[in-house]
Parts: sequence; structure tokens; C-alpha cells
Amino acid sequence: DHVVVAGFGTTGSEAVDELIARGTDPRQIVVIECDGDAAARAEALGCNVLQGDATRDATLEDVKLSRASAMIVAAGRDDTSILITLTARHLAEKLPVSVIVKAEDNELPARQAGATTVINPVSFAGLLLANSSGSRHIANYITDLASVRGSVALNERAVTAQEVGKPLAAIATGLGMRIYRDGKPYGFTDPECEALQPGDLIVEVVRRTRPA
Amino acid sequence: DHVVVAGFGTTGSEAVDELIARGTDPRQIVVIECDGDAAARAEALGCNVLQGDATRDATLEDVKLSRASAMIVAAGRDDTSILITLTARHLAEKLPVSVIVKAEDNELPARQAGATTVINPVSFAGLLLANSSGSRHIANYITDLASVRGSVALNERAVTAQEVGKPLAAIATGLGMRIYRDGKPYGFTDPECEALQPGDLIVEVVRRTRPA
Ligand SMILES: [Ca+2]
Ligand SMILES: [Ca+2]
Repeated sequence: DHVVVAGFGTTGSEAVDELIARGTDPRQIVVIECDGDAAARAEALGCNVLQGDATRDATLEDVKLSRASAMIVAAGRDDTSILITLTARHLAEKLPVSVIVKAEDNELPARQAGATTVINPVSFAGLLLANSSGSRHIANYITDLASVRGSVALNERAVTAQEVGKPLAAIATGLGMRIYRDGKPYGFTDPECEALQPGDLIVEVVRRTRPA
Repeated sequence: DHVVVAGFGTTGSEAVDELIARGTDPRQIVVIECDGDAAARAEALGCNVLQGDATRDATLEDVKLSRASAMIVAAGRDDTSILITLTARHLAEKLPVSVIVKAEDNELPARQAGATTVINPVSFAGLLLANSSGSRHIANYITDLASVRGSVALNERAVTAQEVGKPLAAIATGLGMRIYRDGKPYGFTDPECEALQPGDLIVEVVRRTRPA
């Protein structure tokens, strides 16, 4: 039940920092990195490190990919990241794989390669810029939501037996934003959210103990 | 009441795309770009374009920066972006200025230069990666929040006279997430949100008409 991180450049290392800040034990993180200096930095954080080429089946088998809980791919080049994604998908059919893609053109190929989440940093930065031009606080609020630091966080969890039949607005753990039912999303104003059902996934905003 | 965009590389052009998708008239967007090809792409969208160097006072005076409603800085290099920010702040004391910074070390200097919002695409991508490793939907939910596309958006607005005295949870326009009172943030579980006051700013999640 470990997390495999392919690529420990700036983005991969930011992701690992955040995972550790969220409470992931560094020993549960396996970093694959070919560069020796980057590999040493990952080791210094307490991660398991395999110095090798994550595009190769043998490397992904060495890190027991088929038993991992998730994979993060940030190889620094879109072609490499997409090849790693393809290789990973072929070895671990159901593994959640999140991949960084720099060119918009490569978002669709990354999905076709089997990525469950495709993140384009440039495109996201453009969204944040546009948000911040009309309002002072929204870009910061989104950053707070995305980070374990600050005063709020997003949480995804299964509905509990006690919550079944009640409205999403009545959950006591946070503000209910959206549910996923049979894989489909329903927002807080949709009629589907008036009565939670067994098997629903809830996305909620939770307060953290530290003030903003 | 125009928006000035300094730099029309990939990030600046994504920001302009999103502004137009949100309903900003392209004629209200003034792009400053030294590269001729990029300038032509901005012109093709209907933006006003000044081909020039945004680090110079004269250029920013030409685009009437002191009368702009906001500025977006994405020059492609941190040193250039920070110098543009400094120049802009000196010409327009109260202008909201959002700047893209690539190296974490440069976030603090960008703030010291007068930026109101500093966005680091790499660091944000790392946060999204970490979010997506533990849950299938959160990175996508954050992207939906940040973009005008999809089923939800974040909105920042002043409290209305009718809402004063009522709790944040009672607003009818969306889900109230946070208020800013005298510049300080209070979250939905804080006692300050039990009675809205004149002058409060509300950050809310609103549904969009199109389904997810
Ligand atoms: Ca947070
Ligand atoms: Ca949206």
C-alpha cells in the first residue's frame, strides 16, 4: 500500500513534500529517479529510492507497482511521462495514476495512455491568474483548498451508514460540495443530494484546527 | 476599467482565454508583448495589443495602467516578471497585480515588489498531484472550481443589505465558504460567520447552469 513517484524534479518533490505534510510515512513513498542528486534528496527525506528508468517494465516490477495504492508521474518531459503511464497501466490495471503534462496537446494522449488524473501546470496557472484578476481572495482560497496547510482542505470519503437517507447539507464533518453516485457527479443543489445512498462518495470542505 | 496582461506566452494566453470565457470583452484586455508572433495571436482574439517592453514606465503609462482594474504578469522569466511588478506598483499604488513565479525562492521577492497574488505553477501542480494520490476526484474538483467551465465556480462578492445579521450558511446564491471582515478571513465554522456584517466580503461556491 505504497505510493510510487516517478520523477523527483521540482514538481515530484513538491508532491512528496505535500504527501509527507499530510501524514504519509516517507517509508511508504517509493521514488524512481535516474538523476543521482535528485535521488539523494529523496533519500534524505526518508523515502525509498530506486535509481532507474521508470519507462521499463523491470523497474516498475521492482517497486511492486501492482501492489501500490497510487502512482504519481512527473518525469519532466511529456513523452517520458506518457510512456511511463502506458507501462504502468499495462502492469497495474486499476492503479490510480496521476500525470503532469506540460503541453495541452498531450493531455488527451496521457488519458489514452491510462492516466486517471492529468494535470497541466501552465493551464492551471492561467486559471488562477484569471480568477485573481476579478477578486482578491479566490486564488488564495483555491491554494488553501489544495494544500494541507492553511485553514481548509478538501476531503473525499464514503458515505456512512448513519448518513444514508439524509441530505448532503446535513453532514456534520464538513461542507458537502458534491457526491459521486455510480461514478457520476452531483452538486449540492441537485435533487440527488437530498437523500444520500449507500455507496455514495462525498467531496467535502473540512476545517483544519489551525486558523487561516 | 481594463485588464492589463504583461506577457502572452502559454500562461498569459491561458489566462486571457479564461477571462474571455468568463465574459470579459476582449477589447477590455490590453496585452503587452514584445514577441511579434505572440502579439499577433493576442490581436486575433480581439485584444488590444501593445508591442513593447512592460518593464518600462513609458510602456505601462501608454496602456493607462493607473486606470486599469487589474494586472496579470506572466513574462516567462521571474526576473522580468518581478521588475514589471515593481514598475507597475510604483505607477499604480492600489492596482491588484497577480504574477507568475517559477522558482519558490522568488515568491517572497515578488510579494515585496508589490504583487497582491503570487502563483507558482510548479508548486501548485505538486499540490494537485498529492491530492490526487489519495482520492480520485479532488484534483478534478479543484480544477472545476478554478475554471468557468464545468458545474461549479468560486465567486467573491460583497454582502448585501438583506443578508446583514443572517448567518453565512443562510445565503441563497451559493454555498458560503469564507468571509473577509476588515481584511481577515473567517471560515464557515467560525463564530464570526453566524451574523454577517456590512462590508463583509463573501467567498461562495456557485452552481453553473451547465451540468458537470
Ligand atoms: Ca489548506
Ligand atoms: Ca467550473
